[in-house]
Amino acid sequence: MRDVFVLGVGQSQFGKMPDRSIGSLGREAALAAITDAGIPAREIEVAYGSRLYADMITAQTVLKEVGITRIEMMSIENACAGGASAVRALWKDIAAGFYDVGIVVGVESMTTSPVAGKLIPPAKDDLEGQLGSAMPVTFALMANRLMETHGATPEDFAQVSVKSHDFGALNPKAQYRKRFTVEEVLASRPVVDPITLLQCCPNTDGAAAVILCSESYARRYTRQPIRIMASVLQSGDYFHRKADLTSFEVGARTAAKAYEMAGVDPRDIDLVEIHDAFTAEELVHYEDLQLCARGDAVGLLRSGATSLGGRVPVNPSGGLLSLGHPLSSSGVRNIGEIALHLRGEAGERQVPGAKLGLAQMLGGNATGLETGACAIHILSR
Amino acid sequence: MRDVFVLGVGQSQFGKMPDRSIGSLGREAALAAITDAGIPAREIEVAYGSRLYADMITAQTVLKEVGITRIEMMSIENACAGGASAVRALWKDIAAGFYDVGIVVGVESMTTSPVAGKLIPPAKDDLEGQLGSAMPVTFALMANRLMETHGATPEDFAQVSVKSHDFGALNPKAQYRKRFTVEEVLASRPVVDPITLLQCCPNTDGAAAVILCSESYARRYTRQPIRIMASVLQSGDYFHRKADLTSFEVGARTAAKAYEMAGVDPRDIDLVEIHDAFTAEELVHYEDLQLCARGDAVGLLRSGATSLGGRVPVNPSGGLLSLGHPLSSSGVRNIGEIALHLRGEAGERQVPGAKLGLAQMLGGNATGLETGACAIHILSR
Repeated sequence: MRDVFVLGVGQSQFGKMPDRSIGSLGREAALAAITDAGIPAREIEVAYGSRLYADMITAQTVLKEVGITRIEMMSIENACAGGASAVRALWKDIAAGFYDVGIVVGVESMTTSPVAGKLIPPAKDDLEGQLGSAMPVTFALMANRLMETHGATPEDFAQVSVKSHDFGALNPKAQYRKRFTVEEVLASRPVVDPITLLQCCPNTDGAAAVILCSESYARRYTRQPIRIMASVLQSGDYFHRKADLTSFEVGARTAAKAYEMAGVDPRDIDLVEIHDAFTAEELVHYEDLQLCARGDAVGLLRSGATSLGGRVPVNPSGGLLSLGHPLSSSGVRNIGEIALHLRGEAGERQVPGAKLGLAQMLGGNATGLETGACAIHILSR
Repeated sequence: MRDVFVLGVGQSQFGKMPDRSIGSLGREAALAAITDAGIPAREIEVAYGSRLYADMITAQTVLKEVGITRIEMMSIENACAGGASAVRALWKDIAAGFYDVGIVVGVESMTTSPVAGKLIPPAKDDLEGQLGSAMPVTFALMANRLMETHGATPEDFAQVSVKSHDFGALNPKAQYRKRFTVEEVLASRPVVDPITLLQCCPNTDGAAAVILCSESYARRYTRQPIRIMASVLQSGDYFHRKADLTSFEVGARTAAKAYEMAGVDPRDIDLVEIHDAFTAEELVHYEDLQLCARGDAVGLLRSGATSLGGRVPVNPSGGLLSLGHPLSSSGVRNIGEIALHLRGEAGERQVPGAKLGLAQMLGGNATGLETGACAIHILSR
């Protein structure tokens, strides 16, 4: 297999923009990535869209807006991990030598989707879902268990939101650029105890794109290629096999595979982007990603290591909570975020001297499964 | 690249089954394919779903029903070509050596989808769509042009439906197993002149699955592996570049690439499965697939060569018109159909002595594009 590199990254503004189409949002991201890569659009050989609620042929709908037609194109769905799964598909194409350069565009218009302003509905044979186990409920159960087993407090969960908004306030693409205090987060509207409104990711419209390429192609266009050290996608297991409510089995398994593929030690990771749809899960991901030992997630959070200026900042983009969460975009966007930091081009939120970063996305539920999928990419400069 | 083989094929009953979930439909197809392959389900290393309107994480939703979790899974969307695109993705995985065996399951519940009982709605920035250019309109324009340029008659279009229903009547999985006369087809409700109701594919619920594997894996389980000679997926071009209303540029381009990849002559193809959502397009595909010379499609149809017992039967399954069209299933299902004939296991509708077959799917529209995608697989025994 050949080495694969991130050559270009781009995203649209994130926010509530119901007047903008999939084509319009996607164009903004794709053009930004093509411009960032500095390549002629006509050289792109393969394209993946990613979408959950977008119209059909998402890839073609976006790429015709930037002059790209007549190549292999398909779109990927894997719930919140869709965008990262599409990056994985493109990584395989280039690693195997099918193509030298390609683009992924993840895009959602959540405000015009069938779930706009609603909880994501359960499938008709999703018994737990039909009985009320909506997304925030699942994560509230996790929060309660973390309080029992880890000594977590509602203030700790609120601190995750504070931290994310501290970062998001520095990101010009973020949906919410406002900082909050722990008290403000706790005083926001209760959703499912102990989760309050400011601990839930918002409904967001937006798109993100990345361009991947082979080493020889990268050399033609950049002196600063970002190498993909690991690309791993795994699906979840049955819920009845879940041994621990404070770990995602698929998250820990995918992380272990990714570290093995990259040949790196978790302690060497300089920054991390994760799926933080609800605050409590961030603590779980700390442990599943081996950023700390089992049981130490609360300590890691309280130490400030994962905050602005810390040893291993988590979600320097602002994450899903503050930057926003257009579902299938997020897994593309957070890989792009890591690449920006590794290049030293992340502006005010830059993690200084970052050399090795990890982007994780988790997502999806169906009756009887712990969760749908986890995708992890490890990048280095 | 390694050779890739079709080891197992399966499909659910096709029809209107609004009480059945995605999991239920998908399970029927996946179990049939696993049983057909004769392999332990636990050996499957990678899985693709394909869906347009199904719930999120389609692959996982189906595969958990047959005991498959904890592997790489994602789902593909490419409108009607989604299932075939997922087969292409799996083909690449095995050809490149990422995996030795994997499954694709395409599934739709059209009767419970947001488009149930309606025309597929245009995207909000699809100007032609908003002005009324729905799917049957596009194909009616094509029919009218064929009447001007090719001497086609309404009776010819009706004959395509008659032919498809002749085949479908022999397929126990078909939604409609009733034969019709040209007069009956023409007398059915007008939709868009000259297309009548029996010339439009129905709304269909259903699923289909195929299992692909490497040569060494195939040898362990079968003495009759079906080789994939070509796997090609291409996206369409801008409509304003379309030179000829009686050809799909993407269809002709994809076919040329597929014949080149397979190293076979179109005249050696023994049977063909195509996207026949509306009768008129079948004539266009004859020419784009080089089953006859440009301009000779009507002659080929009238000769009976593409009918039951003909030289190169087209849609021996009954096709979208009679077997039914659960969008993302169809491209998986028609590859499976070719494999059944090459094995000599297609029952009453068997094409005698078939050695080389071609499965084509075309689909998707967005403003300004001719069409979304075309995927072609050429299989041989």
